[in-house]
Amino acid sequence: MSYRIEHDTMGEVQVPADKYWGAQTERSRNNFKIGPAASMPAEIIEAFAYLKKAAAYTNADAGILPTEKRDLIAQVCDEILAGQLADQFPLVVWQTGSGTQSNMNVNEVVSNRAHVIQGNKLGEGKPFIHPNDDVNKSQSSNDTYPTAMHIAAYKKIVEVTIPGVEKLRDTLKAKAEAFANVVKIGRTHLMDATPLTLGQEFSGYVAQLDYGLKALKNTLAHLAELALGGTAVGTGINTPKGYAETVAKYIADFTGLPFRTAPNKFEALAAHDAIVESHGALKQLAVSLHKIANDIRMLASGPRSGIGEILIPENEPGSSIMPGKVNPTQCEALTMVAAQVIGNDVTISFGGANGHYELNVFKPVMAANFLQSAQLIGDACISFNEHCATGIEPNYDGIKKHLENSLMLVTALNPHIGYENAAKIAKKAHKENKSLREAALELGLLTNEQFDEWVRPEDMIGGLK
Amino acid sequence: MSYRIEHDTMGEVQVPADKYWGAQTERSRNNFKIGPAASMPAEIIEAFAYLKKAAAYTNADAGILPTEKRDLIAQVCDEILAGQLADQFPLVVWQTGSGTQSNMNVNEVVSNRAHVIQGNKLGEGKPFIHPNDDVNKSQSSNDTYPTAMHIAAYKKIVEVTIPGVEKLRDTLKAKAEAFANVVKIGRTHLMDATPLTLGQEFSGYVAQLDYGLKALKNTLAHLAELALGGTAVGTGINTPKGYAETVAKYIADFTGLPFRTAPNKFEALAAHDAIVESHGALKQLAVSLHKIANDIRMLASGPRSGIGEILIPENEPGSSIMPGKVNPTQCEALTMVAAQVIGNDVTISFGGANGHYELNVFKPVMAANFLQSAQLIGDACISFNEHCATGIEPNYDGIKKHLENSLMLVTALNPHIGYENAAKIAKKAHKENKSLREAALELGLLTNEQFDEWVRPEDMIGGLK
Amino acid sequence: MSYRIEHDTMGEVQVPADKYWGAQTERSRNNFKIGPAASMPAEIIEAFAYLKKAAAYTNADAGILPTEKRDLIAQVCDEILAGQLADQFPLVVWQTGSGTQSNMNVNEVVSNRAHVIQGNKLGEGKPFIHPNDDVNKSQSSNDTYPTAMHIAAYKKIVEVTIPGVEKLRDTLKAKAEAFANVVKIGRTHLMDATPLTLGQEFSGYVAQLDYGLKALKNTLAHLAELALGGTAVGTGINTPKGYAETVAKYIADFTGLPFRTAPNKFEALAAHDAIVESHGALKQLAVSLHKIANDIRMLASGPRSGIGEILIPENEPGSSIMPGKVNPTQCEALTMVAAQVIGNDVTISFGGANGHYELNVFKPVMAANFLQSAQLIGDACISFNEHCATGIEPNYDGIKKHLENSLMLVTALNPHIGYENAAKIAKKAHKENKSLREAALELGLLTNEQFDEWVRPEDMIGGLK
Amino acid sequence: MSYRIEHDTMGEVQVPADKYWGAQTERSRNNFKIGPAASMPAEIIEAFAYLKKAAAYTNADAGILPTEKRDLIAQVCDEILAGQLADQFPLVVWQTGSGTQSNMNVNEVVSNRAHVIQGNKLGEGKPFIHPNDDVNKSQSSNDTYPTAMHIAAYKKIVEVTIPGVEKLRDTLKAKAEAFANVVKIGRTHLMDATPLTLGQEFSGYVAQLDYGLKALKNTLAHLAELALGGTAVGTGINTPKGYAETVAKYIADFTGLPFRTAPNKFEALAAHDAIVESHGALKQLAVSLHKIANDIRMLASGPRSGIGEILIPENEPGSSIMPGKVNPTQCEALTMVAAQVIGNDVTISFGGANGHYELNVFKPVMAANFLQSAQLIGDACISFNEHCATGIEPNYDGIKKHLENSLMLVTALNPHIGYENAAKIAKKAHKENKSLREAALELGLLTNEQFDEWVRPEDMIGGLK
Repeated sequence: MSYRIEHDTMGEVQVPADKYWGAQTERSRNNFKIGPAASMPAEIIEAFAYLKKAAAYTNADAGILPTEKRDLIAQVCDEILAGQLADQFPLVVWQTGSGTQSNMNVNEVVSNRAHVIQGNKLGEGKPFIHPNDDVNKSQSSNDTYPTAMHIAAYKKIVEVTIPGVEKLRDTLKAKAEAFANVVKIGRTHLMDATPLTLGQEFSGYVAQLDYGLKALKNTLAHLAELALGGTAVGTGINTPKGYAETVAKYIADFTGLPFRTAPNKFEALAAHDAIVESHGALKQLAVSLHKIANDIRMLASGPRSGIGEILIPENEPGSSIMPGKVNPTQCEALTMVAAQVIGNDVTISFGGANGHYELNVFKPVMAANFLQSAQLIGDACISFNEHCATGIEPNYDGIKKHLENSLMLVTALNPHIGYENAAKIAKKAHKENKSLREAALELGLLTNEQFDEWVRPEDMIGGLK
Repeated sequence: MSYRIEHDTMGEVQVPADKYWGAQTERSRNNFKIGPAASMPAEIIEAFAYLKKAAAYTNADAGILPTEKRDLIAQVCDEILAGQLADQFPLVVWQTGSGTQSNMNVNEVVSNRAHVIQGNKLGEGKPFIHPNDDVNKSQSSNDTYPTAMHIAAYKKIVEVTIPGVEKLRDTLKAKAEAFANVVKIGRTHLMDATPLTLGQEFSGYVAQLDYGLKALKNTLAHLAELALGGTAVGTGINTPKGYAETVAKYIADFTGLPFRTAPNKFEALAAHDAIVESHGALKQLAVSLHKIANDIRMLASGPRSGIGEILIPENEPGSSIMPGKVNPTQCEALTMVAAQVIGNDVTISFGGANGHYELNVFKPVMAANFLQSAQLIGDACISFNEHCATGIEPNYDGIKKHLENSLMLVTALNPHIGYENAAKIAKKAHKENKSLREAALELGLLTNEQFDEWVRPEDMIGGLK
Repeated sequence: MSYRIEHDTMGEVQVPADKYWGAQTERSRNNFKIGPAASMPAEIIEAFAYLKKAAAYTNADAGILPTEKRDLIAQVCDEILAGQLADQFPLVVWQTGSGTQSNMNVNEVVSNRAHVIQGNKLGEGKPFIHPNDDVNKSQSSNDTYPTAMHIAAYKKIVEVTIPGVEKLRDTLKAKAEAFANVVKIGRTHLMDATPLTLGQEFSGYVAQLDYGLKALKNTLAHLAELALGGTAVGTGINTPKGYAETVAKYIADFTGLPFRTAPNKFEALAAHDAIVESHGALKQLAVSLHKIANDIRMLASGPRSGIGEILIPENEPGSSIMPGKVNPTQCEALTMVAAQVIGNDVTISFGGANGHYELNVFKPVMAANFLQSAQLIGDACISFNEHCATGIEPNYDGIKKHLENSLMLVTALNPHIGYENAAKIAKKAHKENKSLREAALELGLLTNEQFDEWVRPEDMIGGLK
Repeated sequence: MSYRIEHDTMGEVQVPADKYWGAQTERSRNNFKIGPAASMPAEIIEAFAYLKKAAAYTNADAGILPTEKRDLIAQVCDEILAGQLADQFPLVVWQTGSGTQSNMNVNEVVSNRAHVIQGNKLGEGKPFIHPNDDVNKSQSSNDTYPTAMHIAAYKKIVEVTIPGVEKLRDTLKAKAEAFANVVKIGRTHLMDATPLTLGQEFSGYVAQLDYGLKALKNTLAHLAELALGGTAVGTGINTPKGYAETVAKYIADFTGLPFRTAPNKFEALAAHDAIVESHGALKQLAVSLHKIANDIRMLASGPRSGIGEILIPENEPGSSIMPGKVNPTQCEALTMVAAQVIGNDVTISFGGANGHYELNVFKPVMAANFLQSAQLIGDACISFNEHCATGIEPNYDGIKKHLENSLMLVTALNPHIGYENAAKIAKKAHKENKSLREAALELGLLTNEQFDEWVRPEDMIGGLK
């Protein structure tokens, strides 16, 4: 491999000749060989492109950056957003906890790429755009990285997570309506209980996701607040007047999302409670999705020796050894995602709690875990929706068999003969393996006609009349 | 100890002669000897008293419970609320996951206590009030226990957590204002950085708590929804028409809190996402409080070999061996509380994710962890506020010494001489243990007058002019 | 309430007249009103009694404490161990993170109680035994509290946790043997799979607990190491020569457990990795117990609409509304304990990770969570064992029905006709709701005799012949 | 893109024409578009290559696989191990929870690649090696995937984690020895305490890592046990006699690691407690590393306004805005890794606890989190070691200044004048900003000569003489 020489305030560094990054990126590559390369999320780099462009415009508006520099910076940022420079960001999550090196990676790439756009050769001559003095003007890693975190997190939630969850919610809602009259046995403590409809059962899932979506949306206002303008420690040193508000407005324009400047920049650099808050809502969704997916696989279990009250799509051969086996694989993917998100929440809480003074230095690990959770939930909901939820159908045979045998229909007798007499019937039926009717009549606690009138599953699904 | 005989549908049980509880409570006492006795939170029992009374009123309104029974039930509930029956609830958290046995504990105590109020002797004759048919009328453990969880959780948050956090927030706000002009060195990565004021530093803490309070309040709407009326599986079997709405209204009246009936009872029994959601906000507060308390103890560290920029109250001798030592003990209590709450959040997520079908059976463990977190945060904020925060004062000597020595004031030169030249000055000063001014002049990068004009800490705390 | 005046190096404090504790305990009572009173675990106080007595003996042996003082100190310690002074330790977990105040609580109680034993009146005259100079001689909170943590933790594990888990393990082992020939359907992905015996299924549970016990025992060596002798920062300042070794020997003698002095006292004060390590093993057991209890309740589910392959004891009425319902309540208690322990592990990790310099100040919260987990696992295993595991029996009807219907017996045909042909048979049987035999013969893939020879569940439970 | 047609028991599937994978892999690709492609860890694929080869040898030894097939299978496995087929494994972690589809991915690639090795064209003719009947012979996903988990986990720990931690341990040990005589102030509660040597401080870190390594090694025996031979549910259906032992032996031979067959295959499929156990030890190391890295960055803080008792290497410019700033970036990477591992532990516990019946279906998420943790700890220790630990040097100026000023040297007076008199001296010195000597003499509690004799930091670092 051929190299060129780049320098920074510490001296010279050899950089691969064909890469746009500079000395500081290369130092980081060499100093942090931890886990797979380029693990810094691409969404963070993209968010940097938005904010660097916005900063250039704001600086130009303030008269401290020439228009020509602004336009060059913006041009490279647009190339990054178009995915044309995807191989120029080799750094890992496990670098400095402020993400400084990724900020500098972007600064350096913008500087060098602009140099080439201007017709120069990489490594020859002094770039017109300086990574620090121009690209990073009126900025610090300390406010750019958390700004990038919020941009990336917000975008992911509204573009991936919410649409994915909503799609699944809509399908489950349609199922709840379609199954509104399918009376089936209920189960509490995993044991037979009084009946409900399959639609009612599914309506609970819908409610869970609706609450989860609402909780997630509740957190967006905090996430919409941007640190940019705080620079080094939150005071905004080296920023022009009005910078914070204007740069947030540019970011809002460029992304089409309602970003605004954070009212308190000290909080915005030293803490990442907005990330903690929003991920808390993602974790709530994970908890809900685990419950839903687990229920669905239990209801679909069988085909002959399980619960077998619903049918789910058969998407692939289920076993490499057991021929003809079909498994609830989409449920499994979703429950694994839930497990991941629940663990990620601890990582994020740990990082969030351990900031010091003016800066939290768990930024990259918080960002990476957040973005993973938000992506996985969105993707897994789409996958589960398409390949499982839309295809769910009642297994009427299984439902009917369970409903007819149930002893818990006896509950309907409480208002008529009291809890203790009703218990006697249920216990006798259970012990002697009889039907409720047989047991009731043998005990002389009610007549055949009363049984017909009082024990009607279809009347037990909506309160007393 | 003397005993009397009580019975339930399974037969006879010996119960301590002087206790109001009955057969099912005693069975649970014997069957679940796990951890210390009576660990079921008293707040849950109190919440049951509210809801049993509300149910009695609603049943009476519906004409299915005689007024005499209603009033007797209400009388015992009022005794429970007054704390007069505190030794009648011996059960543990680690019982059935639906909390059925604590529901029955309340039912039995009401029944037997009413029996005695009526002038009878405990264990003699058949109680006028039946634990199941009267006290539990139109109810199931499956809807009462989650209702009690929400009542207890909501009350705790508005009566303990929020007032505690707000008190601390108010004190920190007053400090932020009082310290608004105390210029001090900033620290990022624990390293010297550009200056800010002590008031700005504290304003970040205030912002954190404000966000946390807002996030917590965002969750109250969900927590205000009550499962009562869902009975066994959410269908409301054995409830009279309009029951759910009315009983919620009574609970709202009795508690003075805005409870209302949950729109979907299936979710309300099978999932406890409201608990997960609210505890997520408690966890966010824990994360914030850890950051704040940790900063304060670091800033107060010393007295001679630490950071020493603030003074905190000396409340007690700090060491059993080191005479005269004073420690940041309130910070330590608060950070330990944070650790507890962060762990409790995992327990609650685990429990919330593992409900099955129509019922989540991690109710008691979720309730206990929630109430502990909400209490500890509220109490610890009050304690920290009274015994630490209110007494915080700047240590002007320490602040001044650090500010004057700082090399990071060099940052103010970036707009004038560029990042790279500024770096040369800082490096030279650091290496040769000189002041910035000396290094700058020796390098010939600016004049003495320029240094005076450009490097002014008091101008570095609010953006460029 | 009447008070007496006590003093410490900070001045005078009013203390309840009838309590043995002194000024520092009272300060802590007043300064830390966080959560319920006296939450500092009694096991920690007991452990302090052991170590204070051991220290007195060691100091006397070294000639720096008169025998008379030694004996008085030992006498009070014995009273504490006998539970006679249980109401003298009112402090909470949420105090200073070093536990200094509980160390002083013990020191003060020993001093004042000895004063009374000597015939004096509480509060009159100067105690012969000084809390710091005598009871705390050659000690610091910084080495006594972690020593108490190890003593209490070790004792709890060997006296409660291990015996509890072993009892359950033994029962499950006996069941595994008793059920060795009960052939039943297997389930993977919750779906029907090839058969195994019920005994084999239970043998997996036994193996889990055996591994868990082994893992737990692996951690005891670290837990047996005591910090005592490190005093303030680990150097052992103010201890006589040989003190650390001797005091550990005395503690080993008094407790009958193999304690020894920690080879590195700096680690022993500044980190609590032994607690992290042992609790990691408790968490592993929690994970195992959750799997086991969850399986058992699923296998026992029904009675008519569940899996229904085993029968578990009916210990109590299961429902306050559904008469005759019986629930797997012991499983639920055990799974709730598992959730608690998994959360406690995070609290302990968080605390363990956040020590600073020479001292970790999350000691009380780590101790409290550890002891809770160790107690709950031990108790819950005993409870589950007595009230559930010992009574488990196969439900032969359910087992037989499922086994006969299973399509996965087709797996036995792979070696004879290949996976793809076998899959054709299974699919046809499933689609047309036929038996495997019917489908196989209709497809002409084997003869009736071959089916008889190849498809024998009893031959499918131990590899090929 | 051009395609060819592949089929499985469910029918035909279009597969990219140039890829070796088959129908089931392609189904999984289409059905699980969750997160980035190919997230299934490469280490798992490599482990599959070992075990497929071992199975082929074992089957050939048992006479149920022709030698020609064995050799072809082994040849492709060797190609996988050599990294030549790295682009043939496109599946994600978020698939079926048994990892069946990755098992089939390997089976299909072996089959098709062998077909091409034999001189055929991909997609033309029937492969000589059948994915199920040959490559998967005597296997099931249910025993291969957990076997791959153990192989990959064990290899990672012994090849990456342990060497990395040991390297850091060795460096810290050398530092502890080199700094054995550097007396410095101690700190407890972040406050000044009695002195110790810098070497003693570092010896605590060494002890932590030694305990962590021991704890990790304690878990290897469990991890060395392989599920292979259990096939579908643990019974070993369709395996020849002696298969499990032999195949484990082959794996041990091929990997050079002490693998052996698991004594209980039911546990090995249904639970992954070995993964939980080993990851518990990784989490313990994360806890230790967090403490160590956090201490080091605090000790190195400054350069002018921090603790400043050690110097760490300056590896890169620390700030994009503050010229000349150097940060403890390696500490930050390490603490972020710790946060990740602590969260991963929760994911693994959640997954481990939620297996059902004969199979745990959280296998891929457990494997992925485990391998990430093990890799990150190993890599981060190497990075921290090379770029930070080896370069740590005492900052003698800072150390001396702090030591001389310390009030806690007063502790040495306890044995001479008692705790309370010593406290008077310390308090007076603190309040009046005097030296201990001045305060002591002014109080008349000892003479100048006694002060010289008794207060000697160098005598306070190893117990009383």
